[in-house]
Amino acid sequence: MTSPHPIVAVLNGPNLNLLGQRQPELYGRTTLAELEAMVGAKASALGLAVEFRQSNHEGELIGWVQACRGRARGIVINPAGYTHTSVALLDALLAAELPVIEVHLTNIHRREPFRQTSITGKAATGIIAGLGPAGYLLALEAMAQLIRGGA
Amino acid sequence: MTSPHPIVAVLNGPNLNLLGQRQPELYGRTTLAELEAMVGAKASALGLAVEFRQSNHEGELIGWVQACRGRARGIVINPAGYTHTSVALLDALLAAELPVIEVHLTNIHRREPFRQTSITGKAATGIIAGLGPAGYLLALEAMAQLIRGGA
Amino acid sequence: MTSPHPIVAVLNGPNLNLLGQRQPELYGRTTLAELEAMVGAKASALGLAVEFRQSNHEGELIGWVQACRGRARGIVINPAGYTHTSVALLDALLAAELPVIEVHLTNIHRREPFRQTSITGKAATGIIAGLGPAGYLLALEAMAQLIRGGA
Amino acid sequence: MTSPHPIVAVLNGPNLNLLGQRQPELYGRTTLAELEAMVGAKASALGLAVEFRQSNHEGELIGWVQACRGRARGIVINPAGYTHTSVALLDALLAAELPVIEVHLTNIHRREPFRQTSITGKAATGIIAGLGPAGYLLALEAMAQLIRGGA
Amino acid sequence: MTSPHPIVAVLNGPNLNLLGQRQPELYGRTTLAELEAMVGAKASALGLAVEFRQSNHEGELIGWVQACRGRARGIVINPAGYTHTSVALLDALLAAELPVIEVHLTNIHRREPFRQTSITGKAATGIIAGLGPAGYLLALEAMAQLIRGGA
Amino acid sequence: MTSPHPIVAVLNGPNLNLLGQRQPELYGRTTLAELEAMVGAKASALGLAVEFRQSNHEGELIGWVQACRGRARGIVINPAGYTHTSVALLDALLAAELPVIEVHLTNIHRREPFRQTSITGKAATGIIAGLGPAGYLLALEAMAQLIRGGA
Amino acid sequence: MTSPHPIVAVLNGPNLNLLGQRQPELYGRTTLAELEAMVGAKASALGLAVEFRQSNHEGELIGWVQACRGRARGIVINPAGYTHTSVALLDALLAAELPVIEVHLTNIHRREPFRQTSITGKAATGIIAGLGPAGYLLALEAMAQLIRGGA
Amino acid sequence: MTSPHPIVAVLNGPNLNLLGQRQPELYGRTTLAELEAMVGAKASALGLAVEFRQSNHEGELIGWVQACRGRARGIVINPAGYTHTSVALLDALLAAELPVIEVHLTNIHRREPFRQTSITGKAATGIIAGLGPAGYLLALEAMAQLIRGGA
Amino acid sequence: MTSPHPIVAVLNGPNLNLLGQRQPELYGRTTLAELEAMVGAKASALGLAVEFRQSNHEGELIGWVQACRGRARGIVINPAGYTHTSVALLDALLAAELPVIEVHLTNIHRREPFRQTSITGKAATGIIAGLGPAGYLLALEAMAQLIRGGA
Amino acid sequence: MTSPHPIVAVLNGPNLNLLGQRQPELYGRTTLAELEAMVGAKASALGLAVEFRQSNHEGELIGWVQACRGRARGIVINPAGYTHTSVALLDALLAAELPVIEVHLTNIHRREPFRQTSITGKAATGIIAGLGPAGYLLALEAMAQLIRGGA
Amino acid sequence: MTSPHPIVAVLNGPNLNLLGQRQPELYGRTTLAELEAMVGAKASALGLAVEFRQSNHEGELIGWVQACRGRARGIVINPAGYTHTSVALLDALLAAELPVIEVHLTNIHRREPFRQTSITGKAATGIIAGLGPAGYLLALEAMAQLIRGGA
Amino acid sequence: MTSPHPIVAVLNGPNLNLLGQRQPELYGRTTLAELEAMVGAKASALGLAVEFRQSNHEGELIGWVQACRGRARGIVINPAGYTHTSVALLDALLAAELPVIEVHLTNIHRREPFRQTSITGKAATGIIAGLGPAGYLLALEAMAQLIRGGA
Repeated sequence: MTSPHPIVAVLNGPNLNLLGQRQPELYGRTTLAELEAMVGAKASALGLAVEFRQSNHEGELIGWVQACRGRARGIVINPAGYTHTSVALLDALLAAELPVIEVHLTNIHRREPFRQTSITGKAATGIIAGLGPAGYLLALEAMAQLIRGGA
Repeated sequence: MTSPHPIVAVLNGPNLNLLGQRQPELYGRTTLAELEAMVGAKASALGLAVEFRQSNHEGELIGWVQACRGRARGIVINPAGYTHTSVALLDALLAAELPVIEVHLTNIHRREPFRQTSITGKAATGIIAGLGPAGYLLALEAMAQLIRGGA
Repeated sequence: MTSPHPIVAVLNGPNLNLLGQRQPELYGRTTLAELEAMVGAKASALGLAVEFRQSNHEGELIGWVQACRGRARGIVINPAGYTHTSVALLDALLAAELPVIEVHLTNIHRREPFRQTSITGKAATGIIAGLGPAGYLLALEAMAQLIRGGA
Repeated sequence: MTSPHPIVAVLNGPNLNLLGQRQPELYGRTTLAELEAMVGAKASALGLAVEFRQSNHEGELIGWVQACRGRARGIVINPAGYTHTSVALLDALLAAELPVIEVHLTNIHRREPFRQTSITGKAATGIIAGLGPAGYLLALEAMAQLIRGGA
Repeated sequence: MTSPHPIVAVLNGPNLNLLGQRQPELYGRTTLAELEAMVGAKASALGLAVEFRQSNHEGELIGWVQACRGRARGIVINPAGYTHTSVALLDALLAAELPVIEVHLTNIHRREPFRQTSITGKAATGIIAGLGPAGYLLALEAMAQLIRGGA
Repeated sequence: MTSPHPIVAVLNGPNLNLLGQRQPELYGRTTLAELEAMVGAKASALGLAVEFRQSNHEGELIGWVQACRGRARGIVINPAGYTHTSVALLDALLAAELPVIEVHLTNIHRREPFRQTSITGKAATGIIAGLGPAGYLLALEAMAQLIRGGA
Repeated sequence: MTSPHPIVAVLNGPNLNLLGQRQPELYGRTTLAELEAMVGAKASALGLAVEFRQSNHEGELIGWVQACRGRARGIVINPAGYTHTSVALLDALLAAELPVIEVHLTNIHRREPFRQTSITGKAATGIIAGLGPAGYLLALEAMAQLIRGGA
Repeated sequence: MTSPHPIVAVLNGPNLNLLGQRQPELYGRTTLAELEAMVGAKASALGLAVEFRQSNHEGELIGWVQACRGRARGIVINPAGYTHTSVALLDALLAAELPVIEVHLTNIHRREPFRQTSITGKAATGIIAGLGPAGYLLALEAMAQLIRGGA
Repeated sequence: MTSPHPIVAVLNGPNLNLLGQRQPELYGRTTLAELEAMVGAKASALGLAVEFRQSNHEGELIGWVQACRGRARGIVINPAGYTHTSVALLDALLAAELPVIEVHLTNIHRREPFRQTSITGKAATGIIAGLGPAGYLLALEAMAQLIRGGA
Repeated sequence: MTSPHPIVAVLNGPNLNLLGQRQPELYGRTTLAELEAMVGAKASALGLAVEFRQSNHEGELIGWVQACRGRARGIVINPAGYTHTSVALLDALLAAELPVIEVHLTNIHRREPFRQTSITGKAATGIIAGLGPAGYLLALEAMAQLIRGGA
Repeated sequence: MTSPHPIVAVLNGPNLNLLGQRQPELYGRTTLAELEAMVGAKASALGLAVEFRQSNHEGELIGWVQACRGRARGIVINPAGYTHTSVALLDALLAAELPVIEVHLTNIHRREPFRQTSITGKAATGIIAGLGPAGYLLALEAMAQLIRGGA
Repeated sequence: MTSPHPIVAVLNGPNLNLLGQRQPELYGRTTLAELEAMVGAKASALGLAVEFRQSNHEGELIGWVQACRGRARGIVINPAGYTHTSVALLDALLAAELPVIEVHLTNIHRREPFRQTSITGKAATGIIAGLGPAGYLLALEAMAQLIRGGA
């Protein structure tokens, strides 16, 4: 999986495998596969190699974040429900010592109070929320720039 | 695993595999196997097909909830320790778009303050707490009615 | 009013006399009289004698709870608006030294924050919420079991 | 000021006129003029007409937001210090009935507690934070898409 | 602008210039001009001289309140978004040493939590909320009485 | 008690029977009888039939509110001490499905913190506070308009 | 009921009619009748006329407090469960303009958090808690002194 | 200092040496010496031996409380300013394993919020507040009874 | 406006233009003009050039603070009502990178809870409160020393 | 895996597999392997058999804790990020009915607020924090003593 | 120790004996002796007699404050760590009935949250914070003025 | 008291002089003298010179901590009741600039909420809680290592 292009991990948290089916009025109709295709195309255009992962397991997400250390050049992550509760995932992201961009499909500041805080976001360089699947593409663009120009 | 009867998933969360052994003065002496047998008998009587699952893994529980979409007709769940903390499991239950009944062996309003809130309960049709193993049987009865009569 | 059958008091708090008329999208279309008929039939089947009371007065509810001491074998109560505020009713229930099952027509964890706590529930053996009128029937079933098998 | 291109207002709040000079270790070395030039170029590429405004006055920002109603097609705004306190600016944004993207140069979830909430963000379609001046460019891209495809 | 009639200032805060257009389902369809006409007519009937002001600027509102000292006999004010946040406006109202009636078009106790407190209201003689434009007319009536009979 | 005029119930809560005697520096010197006379006169002028009730009992107030359903056209209520604590009275008001105007003699935002919230106000169309007995007259005026013009 | 001796009302709130039976390990074994006999004897010795009342109804307690105005010389009250919640009873006590001594059988600072505040106590001259029935006797002694020497 | 009579320590905390001089409108005009004389006379009448101590030092008060273990039969203490903050004094009182009555000259529930909690009171059998110097005499009476009859 | 003496800006926030007239029992009888004269005289004695500004506008105050960067040597500011709420003014003060002394006429720790915090004070070198107009003179003295000796 | 020596499980939570690499200025430079070697040597000296486990999965940690029941004699656990959030892990530890010592490499009371509470610690006999890898050795010593002498 | 000059007590709380040595980057390099010399010289110039005291004991500080009543004309106090916790010291200062100026070397609003409140400051005429040793000299100047001109 | 061995102060706070007698079910049966003997023996084995101190006085503990600066090499302290409240003791520990290990006999996370925070612990290198007297021995071991190897 070594690549001439800088590797960016694109990690999706719990329930994002249901994208497109689950509450489409809230999360839209694009499926995860379609999203990954869009992100993949964008990555090619930006000269980045992307690796996609989705898990409902906090521990698995932590493992993937750890695996990025010293191998990937950046992490784009939508921690979904773990955003608001996971100190363990925060610690993994802090340990990664990489640029991290946290993406949310919806604007968390317009939702229930318990969704308005971000624990994992304390390890993020940047956060993009509320822009649907397009948020991932913007995150990738931003990541390309961070990788090239430092942050 | 298709069945002529409507399928109801009966999901048990962390530490419920220890039922009957763990702090019996609090949780009673019925084991999980005995509980499942009781629930199974009740289901037969009600014309329901039940599927039992127990996991200590938040991610696994999320996966099982997801698997119910479009296949099961209802979910009876005791999220145990995840009740009070898991936004990810809440999201899975919301995504399931099924009747959900949350069961607790003990009355959470009589216990420590951190057990008196339910995050997952925000996705539940109903909640039954404090009635021990009998709570599962009542939940199944209520589910039978919800499935037959809509909710 | 002595009876060969164990007596269970079924107490309904403020505004439940309006059942069936009041915000039916929230509380359903069954009237209190219909509910009591359903509960009465269930009680007969279970070998229980039920006594129905409804009051908008906190003090009257307290009086009825007190009257259960040493005469009734259990209390099924929906304290409605007093659930969230009445220490006096809690004290009456604690003093009754009987099995108590608290019933709510709606799932209080899905409603306004001030409805998500239960003061009276601290005196309850069990709580059943969100299952509409069926919740009373389940409560009666559970009560029958508590009376027969101890709690 | 009518234009064949859809108009997007790019509004900057208090102290952003000092960009590039003020605490550059936090806010970077790009000046507001340079930022506006970058955004202007991007807008041209995207076929958008941008109008830049910066003010230290809450009331002036409110006025500009109001002026967008029925004339502009979207608002990109960095409310700076007013983000965390201005219900009046929130109301103006709600009244605008336009797509709004809120931009922050820094990741507000990594800063002092009083900067971790967003009042104005409750009126935003999306939020982009922590990506420095690039955040504005991404916001413009997202806005172009929202204008073309609806939100 | 001296007048044989007692002067009452009618001050409107941020976004009230949009009245009638902005979220009419919430704030109604009467425009500010229409509202002022109604209030003017009522004032004539009551023998009061009214002075209308609307500003989106906290500082301008403060200035107008200050200008009332020793010249006007009362203040009717809808501080809109500044209601919940402005200690500075509260101080101006306290300094005015005049009867003050605070008006809100909507009932603030039914809205978001951050709208349920009133900082400026701590300087008000009375508060009228939730009655739409009619609230201004009632406020004027009450003011007429306060001016004539003391408070 | 049927009347050619629309009926408006004017309900006063605990301790308002003491009006005029109790802490007059705070609540004024008008007695309840005088107040009712003033309100009665105003009602005649407005073509309304008013029914007065005062009770220290939460349950009695709830009963009167319930009795308004389908018979009265509006409720003017000063819940006094129950304002800040009674979910049961709130529920009755919600169930009434009528225009409700809550009146307070004093401005609750200038008093002790526990008087600065209104539970019952969540069911009110409008709130008038701090204007003494005149507040009832204004409430009646507003009610007349609500009844005639809808709310 | 006029008496040559100063009248002191001794009011007991909800559930105190159960004294001696209810949770005796907490509240002791003296019944209310025995308590009243003890208090009556003490009153005679102190040259006071006592009037006893007990109610589970908040409204009835309010009525009795009101009836003390201008007739009794002091109030000894154990508001029981209403201590922690009743603004209405507080208002009645404030309106009585008499010395008030609040009595609690148990030390409320050693009990559950919701019992550690006293709303009604804000109207009391003094509070005696935790001394069981003897607390009433001490309260009567203190009252005798307050009546003789002013407060 | 051995005595045929049961010993009761009467301990006064910081600033009580100023009694009679300090804010007499709040704390009264009786001096500490006069108070001790009154208490001493009462003790004789009750057959108790009292030992008086006053200190501004938390540590000294702790020492005196410790010295009571196994020698005194009860402690009457006014911890004054330490009431609200001293876990160390609470621990000493808990360790004493004696009946403790906490006395306050003023009713702490009517004062500033930081005076409305009692840390030390968690170790008290009973609390008497708001009755001025008479509170000490009542405490002594109650203590005599506790010593004779057990607690 | 260049000067051979170091320039110190003396900025006064909202309502301070009313000094001497507004609530003199709280804020004293010295007018702003008199205060500025006193401060001017003191400045001459200290070899400082002072520039006075007063505004009710948060944005204007922000602008003046910004104008100090690289021109003034220190800022003495009384942000009045903005002290407790303005993150925007705090940001301007942080951006100024100058010694800042915050002055309050009254001791904010003795006033209402919402006046007991200082947002702007987080950017201040020092704070002087409660000493009336003299506080400004002391602030100038301290500033002279900070300018001469560094901070 | 049966052993003549008492078995002690040494469980490490999320991200501890990165020990030595991750933020060494905070967590030190000892790797997990080196730590386990040190602990192993210590265990031999103490006559204990240790079993090492590390997992990023909450569910796996729960499973290992469960596996200790009736087989191990004690548990030394560093729950890392799960310390502050996992009710499920707390429940597992409570169910184990074994001495538990919780170890943290850093002193959690010196870190961010969300790290200053311990949910899992409510099941611990003891806690050792801030002493780096040495904390594990001390925990083992303490455990040896607890096993030999009871707890 | 009687003096022709008005006496001002200058009291320093815990750890201020370490001044100059303790965390000099925070508290500066001036020792307490040097500070007292500076203050003494200033006092001479102002015609005041100063008495210096430093103690680590809360009780001793309370005693010195008490000793000021009727002898000293003012108190300058740096309560250090007791600022944030001591109700007992607050009470002593309130009892002194003298002008009090509270001094802090650092600006408490820029430090940890638990240092941002002042309990003792509720008894102070004024507060000077963040100006290092110079704060004492300014306090003395202000005190001289308060003594001469009243407060 | 100079010693060839590094000096470690072992300081015990309020009520620890009662060790062994006070609530032994909570704090054990080892007396302070026995504890000091155990610690002394351990110190000899580790080549450390220990100095024991116990005080109920916050100020005395502060003095001893101060005396450690530049003379002792480390501090082992059980601040007991002062743990949760003493900013003054925290400041002394911070000023000491030495390794500090805080010891608690009980696990503070299992006790009352007000015991679950540690103010003094913010100055500690490490914390050991819940292991009884053995905690001191472990602390000494850890201290020996910190002194030898740095921290």
